[in-house]
Amino acid sequence: MKINRINAVLNNMKTRGIAQLLISDILSIYYLTGIYLDPGERFYALYLNENGDQKIFLNEMFSVPKEMEIQSVWYNDTQSVTEVVAGHMDVSTVLGIDKSFPARFLIPLQEEKAAAGFVLGSLCVDEARGCKDTEEQALMKEVSHVNDLAMAEFKKLIVPGITEKEFADQMLPIYQRLGAEDYSFEPIVSFGANTADTHHHPEGRVLKEGDCVLIDTGCKKDMYCADMTRTFFYKSVSEKHRAVYETVRKANEAAIAMIKPGIPLKEIDRTARSIIEQAGYGKYFLHRLGHFIGLDVHEYGDVSSSNEMIAKPGMIFSVEPGIYLEGDMGVRIEDLVLVTEDGCIRLNQCSKELEIIARSDMKKPNT
Amino acid sequence: MKINRINAVLNNMKTRGIAQLLISDILSIYYLTGIYLDPGERFYALYLNENGDQKIFLNEMFSVPKEMEIQSVWYNDTQSVTEVVAGHMDVSTVLGIDKSFPARFLIPLQEEKAAAGFVLGSLCVDEARGCKDTEEQALMKEVSHVNDLAMAEFKKLIVPGITEKEFADQMLPIYQRLGAEDYSFEPIVSFGANTADTHHHPEGRVLKEGDCVLIDTGCKKDMYCADMTRTFFYKSVSEKHRAVYETVRKANEAAIAMIKPGIPLKEIDRTARSIIEQAGYGKYFLHRLGHFIGLDVHEYGDVSSSNEMIAKPGMIFSVEPGIYLEGDMGVRIEDLVLVTEDGCIRLNQCSKELEIIARSDMKKPNT
Repeated sequence: MKINRINAVLNNMKTRGIAQLLISDILSIYYLTGIYLDPGERFYALYLNENGDQKIFLNEMFSVPKEMEIQSVWYNDTQSVTEVVAGHMDVSTVLGIDKSFPARFLIPLQEEKAAAGFVLGSLCVDEARGCKDTEEQALMKEVSHVNDLAMAEFKKLIVPGITEKEFADQMLPIYQRLGAEDYSFEPIVSFGANTADTHHHPEGRVLKEGDCVLIDTGCKKDMYCADMTRTFFYKSVSEKHRAVYETVRKANEAAIAMIKPGIPLKEIDRTARSIIEQAGYGKYFLHRLGHFIGLDVHEYGDVSSSNEMIAKPGMIFSVEPGIYLEGDMGVRIEDLVLVTEDGCIRLNQCSKELEIIARSDMKKPNT
Repeated sequence: MKINRINAVLNNMKTRGIAQLLISDILSIYYLTGIYLDPGERFYALYLNENGDQKIFLNEMFSVPKEMEIQSVWYNDTQSVTEVVAGHMDVSTVLGIDKSFPARFLIPLQEEKAAAGFVLGSLCVDEARGCKDTEEQALMKEVSHVNDLAMAEFKKLIVPGITEKEFADQMLPIYQRLGAEDYSFEPIVSFGANTADTHHHPEGRVLKEGDCVLIDTGCKKDMYCADMTRTFFYKSVSEKHRAVYETVRKANEAAIAMIKPGIPLKEIDRTARSIIEQAGYGKYFLHRLGHFIGLDVHEYGDVSSSNEMIAKPGMIFSVEPGIYLEGDMGVRIEDLVLVTEDGCIRLNQCSKELEIIARSDMKKPNT
C-alpha cells in the first residue's frame, strides 16, 4: 500500500465532499496499492472510504496472492458481482466513480441502489497522480534517460533508401536492448511532407534529400512512460525549413525557461504560442503545448490555453510546440519537464540544435 | 454503412424495448459503419433510434473525412460534449448504453437528464456481432489460415537452448511476413512445468528434453482476430504426458464433432468436460471450453456450463479444453470453429496428432 498516495486521495475526497470512492482504472489501483493485474472483462476495483475502510475487489480467477496487505473481497464467476460490491458500499451517501468505470458495472450498481447517488470522483485520484512523489520522479528520470539513449540510436537509422516503416520496425528492439519493456505508444516516424501530419502512421515513404525526419517516441520502463520528439534534416535544409525549425526551438526553450511553481499552465502555452504567432505561423500550431504523463502516456492535466491549473512541484508534463505546413513539412520539438521547488528540470537531454544528417557511407540494413 | 448489421441491432432493440441506443465501443462502431478511429479520451459514439434517426458524434480533431454516409455531429474541445450529445437524445424514453461506455460521459449525461432513464443495451449489438455474416466469415477464415501457416513456422523455433522469451520475440515478424498486421493478443509460450500456468508470460526458461511446449497465439488481419493453441513435446514424452495429451485431444475432437445449429453451448462444454473427468482429470480443467471471437479476441458469448445460448449459423468460437498439472505440465488444444447450416467448419487445419520435435541439427539463432 502506498499510504501517502492514499492519504492524498482521501484529502481530495474530503475537499470535494465525496465520502466513498470506487476506482477501476488499473493504473490508479497500481499507483495506490502496488497491485497490477489485467482483469479483462471482469470486475476489478479499489474502494476507499473516508472512515478508513479500504478494500479491493478481486475475481478468484485473477492470478494474485490470496493474502494481501489490503482487505480483499473475492468473488467468482457464478456470483452477481454487482450484488457483492453493493453489499460493501455505504447506501447512505453518494459514491464517487472514476472516469473509465464501465457502464456494464455502473448501471447495475445504480439499479441496485448501491449508494445514495453516483458522481464523477475521478479528479480525487487524477489530481494526486498529477504530482509525482520522489519514487515516481526517479522512475520518470530513468525512463526518459533510456529514451535519450534510444534517440541517439534512432538517428543512426537515418540512412539512404530507408522507409518510415523500416525505420519504425527497428525501434522496439533498440528500446528493449536498452532495458525498456515496451513502447509507451506506437512511435510516429515521418519523412518529408508526411511530417505535417501530427499523428502520422509510418508507411512506405522513402527518405529523400531535403526531407525533415520527425521522430515522436517513448518507451515504458518499470510501468512509467517516456515521450520525446526530435526533428532532423536529411542531407540538406532549405532556409525556409531552417526558419521554421528555429521558431519551434525558440518556442520550446522559452516555454521551458519560464516553468516554476505558481505559473499558470496556460501562460506557458501562451509564451510558446506567441513566439510561433510572431513568426507568422500561429495558425499552423494546431494543438495544445503539452500533456501530463506518468503511468499513462496521457494523464489528466494539460498545458493549454484553457487550463487554469497552476504549476506545482512534482508535476511532469510535455512541452511540444510544433508548426505543420501541409504538403511541405512539419517540425515538433518535445521534452518532458519536472517542476521543482524553484524551477524545472528537463528530463530529456538530447540536443535540440538543428542537425543535418548525411551518412552516405551507411547502408540500409538487410531486414 | 452496414445496413444489414444496423437492421439486426434495430431488431434486437425492438425485442428489448429500447428505442434509442448510444454505442461507444470502437469495434462496434466499425462493425456497423466501417468507420474506425481511436478517439483517445475524447467522446466518440454512434446513435441509433428505432425511428430511423442515426448519427455519429465526432470531435473536430479526429482525422476522418468531414463528409460521411451517416449524419455526423461535430463538436470541439471548447464545447461541453455532454450538452451537445444531450441535445440529440429523445428525453421522453430510456436510452440504451453499451457496456464499455465510460463513467466520465455517462454520469454527466445522467446529470443532464438526457433521457428518461439509462439501461444497459449492449446485448443489442453484442448479440448481432455474435453471428458473423459472410463477409466476416471470409475474413475469419483468412486470418485463421495465416495463423495455421504461422504455427508451422513457430514449430521450427523449437530448437536446443532456446528460452520462452527468445521464442516469443521471433513470432511477430513471422506473422507480419505472412501478411498479418499484429498479434490479436500477446502470445503465451511456455515450456515444461510453466505450461500448467494458463496465462503464462514468456520468460527465461530454457527448453529441456521431455518438456511440453505450449503455444497459444493469434494474429490480426483486416481487423479480425485469430486464436489457436497447440502443445508439442521436445525430444521425448512420458507415458503419463501422452495420456494427458490424448485425453485433451479427444475432448477437443468430441466437442467439435457435435457442433451444429440447435445445440446448447453448455452441452458442448459438458461433452469435453466429461471426457476429461472420465480420465480422472476433471479438477485440472480450470476454465470454460471456449469464447466467441471476431473483431475482439474475446467477444460476448462463451462455451461454458452456465451459458444457455443455442448454437446458430455464423457463430465463431474457440474450443479449447485443457488439463493443467501444477509443477508438472499442461496441455491445451484450441481451434476456432464456425457454425454452419448443418454442422461446423474448423477454421484451423494444423494437425492435432501428438508430435515429438527433436531437431538436434538445428541451432538457436544469434539474436
